[in-house]
Amino acid sequence: MRKQIIALFLIVLPGLAAFSQQALRGAPEIVSPEIHESGKVTIRVLAPDAKEVKVSGDWMPAEGFTPGSAVMTKDDKGVWSYTSDVLPPELYIYNVIVDGFRTTDPANPFMVRDVASVMNIFIIGSGQADMYRVRDVPHGSVTRRWYDSPGNGRKRRITIYTPPGYETSKEKYPVLYLLHGAGGDEEAWITLGRTAQIMDNLIAQGKAKPMIVVLPNGNVSQEAAPGEETRGFYKPQFMAPKTMDGTYEETFKDIIRFVESSYRVKAEKASRAIAGLSMGGFHSLHISRLYPNTFDYIGLFSAAILPRQGNEIPKAYQQFDETLKKQKDNGYKLYWIAIGKTDFLFANNVEYRAKLDKIGMPYTYRESEGGHIWRNWRVYLTEFAPMLFR
Amino acid sequence: MRKQIIALFLIVLPGLAAFSQQALRGAPEIVSPEIHESGKVTIRVLAPDAKEVKVSGDWMPAEGFTPGSAVMTKDDKGVWSYTSDVLPPELYIYNVIVDGFRTTDPANPFMVRDVASVMNIFIIGSGQADMYRVRDVPHGSVTRRWYDSPGNGRKRRITIYTPPGYETSKEKYPVLYLLHGAGGDEEAWITLGRTAQIMDNLIAQGKAKPMIVVLPNGNVSQEAAPGEETRGFYKPQFMAPKTMDGTYEETFKDIIRFVESSYRVKAEKASRAIAGLSMGGFHSLHISRLYPNTFDYIGLFSAAILPRQGNEIPKAYQQFDETLKKQKDNGYKLYWIAIGKTDFLFANNVEYRAKLDKIGMPYTYRESEGGHIWRNWRVYLTEFAPMLFR
Repeated sequence: MRKQIIALFLIVLPGLAAFSQQALRGAPEIVSPEIHESGKVTIRVLAPDAKEVKVSGDWMPAEGFTPGSAVMTKDDKGVWSYTSDVLPPELYIYNVIVDGFRTTDPANPFMVRDVASVMNIFIIGSGQADMYRVRDVPHGSVTRRWYDSPGNGRKRRITIYTPPGYETSKEKYPVLYLLHGAGGDEEAWITLGRTAQIMDNLIAQGKAKPMIVVLPNGNVSQEAAPGEETRGFYKPQFMAPKTMDGTYEETFKDIIRFVESSYRVKAEKASRAIAGLSMGGFHSLHISRLYPNTFDYIGLFSAAILPRQGNEIPKAYQQFDETLKKQKDNGYKLYWIAIGKTDFLFANNVEYRAKLDKIGMPYTYRESEGGHIWRNWRVYLTEFAPMLFR
Repeated sequence: MRKQIIALFLIVLPGLAAFSQQALRGAPEIVSPEIHESGKVTIRVLAPDAKEVKVSGDWMPAEGFTPGSAVMTKDDKGVWSYTSDVLPPELYIYNVIVDGFRTTDPANPFMVRDVASVMNIFIIGSGQADMYRVRDVPHGSVTRRWYDSPGNGRKRRITIYTPPGYETSKEKYPVLYLLHGAGGDEEAWITLGRTAQIMDNLIAQGKAKPMIVVLPNGNVSQEAAPGEETRGFYKPQFMAPKTMDGTYEETFKDIIRFVESSYRVKAEKASRAIAGLSMGGFHSLHISRLYPNTFDYIGLFSAAILPRQGNEIPKAYQQFDETLKKQKDNGYKLYWIAIGKTDFLFANNVEYRAKLDKIGMPYTYRESEGGHIWRNWRVYLTEFAPMLFR
């Protein structure tokens, strides 16, 4: 018997390195990105036949909407490389451009999708960047599931973060509804926004109260994120139909009902927050005034204020002033407006704050550097969540 | 007041298309892939400056471990294109190669990672391919969470599929433990394996019983998939340390304990199945004989049989024959062995079946076309799940 076992062992597998034949195709044996202790990053691309290779990263100065790029240097093995200056702690995104062809860095399997674009990511430094890392702390759970939306006549997909200990505790939790921008979906805050890492880290540090974070899909014409619904792998578009016509605001009660009947939550105003970025800030603004005694915490991150100019004003956006005044009279604990100085929505937010000042509606204002970018929205979430449910 | 509302509307946003400044960078305005009703696919790459562009897809004949590729044709706008023959219904993966530089198709944001490689995907045709689509059927939930593994001295990440209705039902469910191969992790069966879609569709068609599917991480040296643990965005390796030294088998009880204490399950042999691909088939083989009265359903998909030849045989793999015989004597309902004719583990499986025949241990054998590829493993899951818990 012993002999037989040995004999079986002698049937040596033809190299375990060939185990998954498909897995090994094409991943070049170079290191990219390489994060240096100094706080610099080196990007490398193996492309011996290319005439020019560039890297385009969000740490480079952009020209308007054109992202910045830098030409890489080729060595005698055909490896192009670029090393940055010391970068501030952050999560960065980049693409590589090979003879004008913009694509992903094949040596870096970590990517995020933003609308229809896919970009590589890396994290550098400590401090704020540590909020985006998976650290050795208790981790919450992230669930993708489907809820019934009678208002939209169908089931829709939603992402739910429950804090560490939720499953074994008997406690009831407060809820933050966190909304994405145009072109986003129920994946955006988890992938680009690093919501699970930010919440895990804030909670572990005692900076935020344990809370459930609900990430719905704000495009009512979608059941789910592209690729996750019956339409299959269609190309994501920037503005889905009906995103800012009031339908989402009017049917948001389906989401609240689902959450409050499916999770152990404190179903009360003092334990509900709503915040969003860009179009999600717009949705938060309008939902919070249309459901005037529902949310004690409101966060507008680089928010749009009013919808696209059309032939008629959708019903949800009529009686703006009256409902705001009602919201003010009902009271709330925090109305937080954050925007970057170079955001293209900056002027709209100045105008909106003037409007709030005029009616004496209190808010807290946070002005940051930078524009309409995920870097700011991650920072805003890191600052906003600790103020909730106090 | 009406006038004021109108005035606010006149602050036209500078084009909603600029909402998320980062989102729009670089996604070329071409359609790729284009799925034709005929069952052909066209891939397009905008690369005016390239000298040669190829597409490399898993529907092309490979030469050994070198994936096949086809040269694309350039039009006068610099768009390279390739149209396949009619393809059998399937989920396919591909990369593009621009002047020798292998990367992803930037016009197709749908990708999967296999170890350290990222590839684009598309689905074509009906029939078997329909099992991989998100269809208009009730959807289960997919949760990423962490469980405690005292045997490994730490918390580890796990993916759990619960069937449609789990959250609102009072029923207890059977459990399939579904294990990945070398280089995989708790994401592999969900992304490359389309487990959620396959289970949703099988259950909707009444072909499989509603069940919980547990997707653990089989690399005990990892807390979680690369990028999801404290080591951050390191480059995934093919064989993590300690993957086939018996540790996973010996600590698998931590996973069973977690599942059976956290979910409404039927904690009995008749309601437990274990299956896996390649290294996961190896793990299933050994776990099922080391826990001999635990599983009534065992599935070996393109399984490895014995670990890498070393100086000594790890304890878990000693007494192979004795424990197999014990497993046989205790009885089970299904021992399913599936492998493709050109799989490099084919001979090992022939040998293993001879061993089972010799000891009179019953099994069901399924031989398919093809090799050690995900296409086969998706098909095997589609065939295996309906046989469970009958």
